[in-house]
Amino acid sequence: MNQLTKKICTACRVGAPLATEEEINEFMPQLPYWEIIEEKGVKQLKRVIIFNDFVDAMAFSQKVAILAEGENHHPAILTEWGKVTVFWWTHKINGLHVNDFIMAAKTDELIT
Amino acid sequence: MNQLTKKICTACRVGAPLATEEEINEFMPQLPYWEIIEEKGVKQLKRVIIFNDFVDAMAFSQKVAILAEGENHHPAILTEWGKVTVFWWTHKINGLHVNDFIMAAKTDELIT
Repeated sequence: MNQLTKKICTACRVGAPLATEEEINEFMPQLPYWEIIEEKGVKQLKRVIIFNDFVDAMAFSQKVAILAEGENHHPAILTEWGKVTVFWWTHKINGLHVNDFIMAAKTDELIT
Repeated sequence: MNQLTKKICTACRVGAPLATEEEINEFMPQLPYWEIIEEKGVKQLKRVIIFNDFVDAMAFSQKVAILAEGENHHPAILTEWGKVTVFWWTHKINGLHVNDFIMAAKTDELIT
């Protein structure tokens, strides 16, 4: 049972807390395909997913977009031939919010 | 009249010629919103397009994907909230083929 997938994103505002070290240590074992990267000083969750071709990759990106709209929290999605890279972070706080870990787990659920 | 948009992509193979300096100089004035960047030694055409929100951005990415499938030449598309970045280059030759300039011009035609 993946507890992250049972959570819903809370409204996020400027000044909301970054995920704590303790939270990150709790969440990351639930997200074995994700890594935390740092892009211009901003921590992000990143996962690469491989597909058969461009059409399948784009179809997955579309699914992530629908998920994002539903939760009102939006990633960066890089769509290429046979590959989608998803990045979750929270612009308003320039880093990782609990919401991002929730969205990463929900992204995993879209993979069939 | 944009002549690039009247061309169609030719089948591209390993060993096909990179766009020449002369061709690049001929094409770039037709692509004022595009820049040539270099990513890990590979030249790419890059354009950023701004939208009102994530849904509009994703809808445009989808249009680019349909164009790409039609021409059987595929870009990298980075979709973010209110922003799409399109990158055209030719993997098989690790750089810019005439096809990429054609696709950049056809991408411009998708913008309403």
